[in-house]
Amino acid sequence: MPERELTGPVLIVGTGLLGASIGLALGRHGIPVQLSDLNPDNIRTASGLGAGTPRTPQSPTPQLVVVAVPPDHLGEAILAALEAHPAAVVTDIGSVKSGPLAAVAAHPEAARYCGSHPMAGTQHTGPLTASATLFEGRPWAVTPHGATSVQATRLVRDLVELTGALPLDIGPEDHDRAVARTSHVPHLMSALVAGRLADAPEGHLALSGPGVRDVTRVAGTDPGMWLQIVPANAEAILELLDQIDDQIDVLRTAIRDGDRDALRDVLARGVAGTRAIPGKHGGPVRPTATVYVHVPDQPGVLARLFLDAGEAGVNVEDVRIDHDPAREGGQVELVIDVTALDALVDELTARGWSVHQ
Amino acid sequence: MPERELTGPVLIVGTGLLGASIGLALGRHGIPVQLSDLNPDNIRTASGLGAGTPRTPQSPTPQLVVVAVPPDHLGEAILAALEAHPAAVVTDIGSVKSGPLAAVAAHPEAARYCGSHPMAGTQHTGPLTASATLFEGRPWAVTPHGATSVQATRLVRDLVELTGALPLDIGPEDHDRAVARTSHVPHLMSALVAGRLADAPEGHLALSGPGVRDVTRVAGTDPGMWLQIVPANAEAILELLDQIDDQIDVLRTAIRDGDRDALRDVLARGVAGTRAIPGKHGGPVRPTATVYVHVPDQPGVLARLFLDAGEAGVNVEDVRIDHDPAREGGQVELVIDVTALDALVDELTARGWSVHQ
Repeated sequence: MPERELTGPVLIVGTGLLGASIGLALGRHGIPVQLSDLNPDNIRTASGLGAGTPRTPQSPTPQLVVVAVPPDHLGEAILAALEAHPAAVVTDIGSVKSGPLAAVAAHPEAARYCGSHPMAGTQHTGPLTASATLFEGRPWAVTPHGATSVQATRLVRDLVELTGALPLDIGPEDHDRAVARTSHVPHLMSALVAGRLADAPEGHLALSGPGVRDVTRVAGTDPGMWLQIVPANAEAILELLDQIDDQIDVLRTAIRDGDRDALRDVLARGVAGTRAIPGKHGGPVRPTATVYVHVPDQPGVLARLFLDAGEAGVNVEDVRIDHDPAREGGQVELVIDVTALDALVDELTARGWSVHQ
Repeated sequence: MPERELTGPVLIVGTGLLGASIGLALGRHGIPVQLSDLNPDNIRTASGLGAGTPRTPQSPTPQLVVVAVPPDHLGEAILAALEAHPAAVVTDIGSVKSGPLAAVAAHPEAARYCGSHPMAGTQHTGPLTASATLFEGRPWAVTPHGATSVQATRLVRDLVELTGALPLDIGPEDHDRAVARTSHVPHLMSALVAGRLADAPEGHLALSGPGVRDVTRVAGTDPGMWLQIVPANAEAILELLDQIDDQIDVLRTAIRDGDRDALRDVLARGVAGTRAIPGKHGGPVRPTATVYVHVPDQPGVLARLFLDAGEAGVNVEDVRIDHDPAREGGQVELVIDVTALDALVDELTARGWSVHQ
């Protein structure tokens, strides 16, 4: 790995969850971090956690400014950073890249701006739950525009690597189209399906299974941030919503006419889409099998289950717990490499677990 | 609990995964089970597993017939069972109840028919992976129609309880509207979102996170059965698709106009919908918190994690594993009761885990 050029100081503008977490991650590498926020409480909390020290007029000039403010204020904050720190590289970590770029593109110093977007976050927003490990192993898009300098891109990539994230180079426009497809539109469709549940007659939701919980899970998150993200990526989202709207028409016609070939096409395209998502460690999707284990609802039972699975030498790829609606117990789904299936079923059965495939 | 009236013999027509699993479950209670299937291989496999004995002309007359054939053939198979076994109660386990009922309603012996629908299944279809525990703790809708006799409903409820499932009484029409909302339409919308992934330009899906995987997971299942289920529940599905289509228009207008109030309404309704799904053990949804733990990708690591979580006395409500795209490792999400949050974070951190909220 080439030597890193990012040595600091790094100024973080906006010390919410993500900004403070970046500060904590950089601090572990001894990089000096300056903190700035319109809300002095956030600065106090973040610096108290060790994310950096509050920037003052006496602070040294930063090498890199990380703008981590809400989407609505990205453009102005990036411009302000370019003006205030005439030697610094400036990045931002907003979820949509075209808006900030449009604000900056005409600026004579636009070469010092390189956008970015970490694929990380939690249901929290403030600095209180910040963590140095928030970005570990996560993709983090690095989105240089046409005029971004090599040096600016280099520093932002260093930033990403120092947090433990994986830099993914992609242009700003491609980025926005990609997240519309992989995040924004899935979120909106999840909300529409969940919205139908809110209308359900008494008792109907008792028939809910794991499928609808999966489909609607992301719709349960606080709308706040989405109210800024969705309008900021309007064009790419609308293009996909138009396509989905067309597909709903295809689907309705197929159902109304009992046209199974048309219905099969829609469903088969869905299967193909799920297989197109990159697999574990970014590699190809390996065939997996699912084993269902009935477990009592008590502390320690999952540890015993995983210990016993370990005896079979099986690496569990994914786990899900589906709670019984009526009993103090649940069903655990263990997703494993298909070649380990027989060994796992035999081992768990021999150890007294109630198992089925 | 009142004494059960179901003593057998029970004839199972259709010995696929579900039929054979019912046979295995009844066998554990000593109830004699007869097996019938158009495919003699299925009968051989199911009887070989202990799900029952092949029905012959010499077999005694059944007390209950369970029709477990594919949706397309339900109506005729139920009618055939009513004719062939003039003293038996007949049920079916199809995913849609209005079609079979329409086929049977005019029959003079319709009182002996009571539909049902177990909320269980796996990605498999044949008897080879049948299990006596497939239905344990799962809801199983019992759907008497207006003319169903008390005795017929009673026997079907006994059947459900003997398999370990939870009987849920609901009328056939309500059932179909409920599963359209909680299963069929979520599945179709998941397929439409996944279909957009199949169209993605090279590299765009590298930005996929856990959200889109959740939304599209069910779309990865084999379309085969859905090609029968969806047309069979056309009316209820179309009504909901019309509503979703209307909401997409609302959404597009809101995004195009930058109308955040309208966007907030759509998203807030989604949040309300996710909260309307019954919680663990059917009770109210309790507030949960999520703890993220970075783990290496090696056998035994999950066992150690759950052992350490157990030391904190914490009962894990749900688990998810999100694999790092780039590293041999992953992030485990532990969903726990919010009151246990601090104890768990402290315990895991003290034991050297890399944890964040």
